Amino acid sequence: MKPNDLPGTRWTLAQRAARMNPSVIREILKVTEQPGIISFAGGLPSARTFPVDAFAEACARVLADDGPAALQYAASEGWGPLREQVAAMLPWPVQPSQVLITTGSQQALDLVGKVMIDAGSRVLVETPTYLGALQAFAPMEPVVEGVAGDASGPDMDDLRARAPGARFFYVLPNFQNPSGRTLGEAQREALVETAAATGLPLLEDNPYGELWFDQPPPAPLAARLPGGCLYLGSFSKVLAPGLRLGWVVAPPALFPKLLQAKQAADLHTPGFNQRLVSEVMKNGFLDRHVPGIRALYRRQRDAMLAALEREMQGLGVHWNRPEGGMFLWARLPAGMDAAQLLPRAVARGVAFVPGAAFYAGEADARTLRLSFVTASADEIDRGIAALAAAIREHAPSA
Amino acid sequence: MKPNDLPGTRWTLAQRAARMNPSVIREILKVTEQPGIISFAGGLPSARTFPVDAFAEACARVLADDGPAALQYAASEGWGPLREQVAAMLPWPVQPSQVLITTGSQQALDLVGKVMIDAGSRVLVETPTYLGALQAFAPMEPVVEGVAGDASGPDMDDLRARAPGARFFYVLPNFQNPSGRTLGEAQREALVETAAATGLPLLEDNPYGELWFDQPPPAPLAARLPGGCLYLGSFSKVLAPGLRLGWVVAPPALFPKLLQAKQAADLHTPGFNQRLVSEVMKNGFLDRHVPGIRALYRRQRDAMLAALEREMQGLGVHWNRPEGGMFLWARLPAGMDAAQLLPRAVARGVAFVPGAAFYAGEADARTLRLSFVTASADEIDRGIAALAAAIREHAPSA
Repeated sequence: MKPNDLPGTRWTLAQRAARMNPSVIREILKVTEQPGIISFAGGLPSARTFPVDAFAEACARVLADDGPAALQYAASEGWGPLREQVAAMLPWPVQPSQVLITTGSQQALDLVGKVMIDAGSRVLVETPTYLGALQAFAPMEPVVEGVAGDASGPDMDDLRARAPGARFFYVLPNFQNPSGRTLGEAQREALVETAAATGLPLLEDNPYGELWFDQPPPAPLAARLPGGCLYLGSFSKVLAPGLRLGWVVAPPALFPKLLQAKQAADLHTPGFNQRLVSEVMKNGFLDRHVPGIRALYRRQRDAMLAALEREMQGLGVHWNRPEGGMFLWARLPAGMDAAQLLPRAVARGVAFVPGAAFYAGEADARTLRLSFVTASADEIDRGIAALAAAIREHAPSA
Repeated sequence: MKPNDLPGTRWTLAQRAARMNPSVIREILKVTEQPGIISFAGGLPSARTFPVDAFAEACARVLADDGPAALQYAASEGWGPLREQVAAMLPWPVQPSQVLITTGSQQALDLVGKVMIDAGSRVLVETPTYLGALQAFAPMEPVVEGVAGDASGPDMDDLRARAPGARFFYVLPNFQNPSGRTLGEAQREALVETAAATGLPLLEDNPYGELWFDQPPPAPLAARLPGGCLYLGSFSKVLAPGLRLGWVVAPPALFPKLLQAKQAADLHTPGFNQRLVSEVMKNGFLDRHVPGIRALYRRQRDAMLAALEREMQGLGVHWNRPEGGMFLWARLPAGMDAAQLLPRAVARGVAFVPGAAFYAGEADARTLRLSFVTASADEIDRGIAALAAAIREHAPSA
């Protein structure tokens, strides 16, 4: 009896598989990353900022000094010197033993989800929130609730009302993806006080914090309430995303379980990559390197703001002025829908991400996310002009 | 009101966290990896086999040719040329589109667990089985059942009886970790036929397949029943584990969900590492490199077999003769317990892993796993002599 003559294999998917979906952004990128399209859609750091020469030197040194060890299995916690460097970088007292190195900070979201979310657990997020976090939590089958808020931050009454029984509040206080929103000093104090008063754990994600344009953002939430926060950081935006290096700082109560989840997930983050980044960071490299990224991204943001100012005259479009990071958030006039606008924009050679993908609950269909770091200043000028033309064409009054 | 004056943060762990435990092996390694201890406990490939120079050249070339792209975010599926190289390496027709690059094959176990295991799902494993797989599946809260078997392979009657309703059978046919067991041609045919007849999906894990000593093992299960198998492979044992590069070959019905789980887990496996391995593998590198690993490990296995033959005379210890891989499996005489033996062995300067950790169900407490690849031939001689002395001391008749 040949296998081919038999009934087929009975593949049965887990229930959670039904909740896992292709990333909307990913699907959009497939359409929009064609030659000739100016893309404000992606979330890619500018590859011009990657310190290729420093990495080449570090590769040579790490392999020459300790090649076999750098290529061997390593500890699940991470490479000791890198854990020390991360702890020392942070603006509040952190022990290296609290730092778990992860395969990008995306993995930290996956690990936190595994350790803290049961099927049906309530999890709170910002409105809007980072899509990758929604995807990381989804396999654990939470009920995700968006906390109401405005351009200044989450609404404390709504947060207080939702806190009881929620597993955590996921918050990205600096130059948020997607909205570019930054929480001010007063908002941070209020948020930490509300979290402490309600016992609500905070999951603070800070991939963009170093990319400030005029002044550093206020101190992290974790610096204010270390025992009540899990804090996520990343090297993706200050060095290079392709090495997949992030970390989570965890209170002692959480660290051992996150470590066990980490070990089960991929044994450890590539040790070679950890040594490379540790080597590159020596002697204050980031202090010399990151200002260049800030200056570049600030110029690009300014180019986009100037282009919007110039091209969107009279169209009823609103947008914010991010104080750092990579993204600007815009809103179309009443009656318009960003998802419907997208194909017309692509037809005119420009792409963006409709904001609806970033909402846990009811979406604001008029919103869109514009990345200002991938396209050049010249492309930004042409792209925003094309976007304005598409909006003009699409406008209900047109 | 200061946060410190308030009741503490209400950290609530997911139910699954209770099922996540520190690896027994990891805990043992902490005790045993002290200076002066000869360790047969770890599962580390010999670092002497890592092609450090080839990696140094590849680093320089990849960064010089395409540095910014190598350090940028990349596709969740994996680097196209590497997917093609993996597909071309496999001994049955595989499309590159079926190959998902993972952060070590451990991650593939995590992804399969997420996509195929609900809480309470029945999952079948060998007796004994790879501990890392048990750990990867545990967060999805399966009921894991060990399929009965002997030194030749799993018992087909037991497998057939357990197949209905089980999500898959996890099987490591070549030089298994921990037992060193290899399934022969007849066992593979019987296994594939049983799987096909019952519709039971197979999860085939093959990290050691290239490390054969005298002749290549029979063709993989996936080559016999491609539509009924998920196949896991790894570069950890033929190039270097510290880069964390593995893959899963999935039938079209499973691939999209595994890809979504992969994207949510860590976005993608480090692109730099993928390009390095792709570069190193060019021009038939593995065909020249792997024979040296095989020869080294064969010499080490022979040294361990000779030492066991010499030192265990009359002690009632039994062991097998692995035809490849890294591990040998031994069994103490009746009345002895490997976990109780361990501290006495460590006191005499030698360490191993008690076999009980590798059983899903009732464990055989007399078994132990001995790695023959990390210690040198001279250390093997001294270590086995010390182990024999510990057994002699520990034996009930002593």
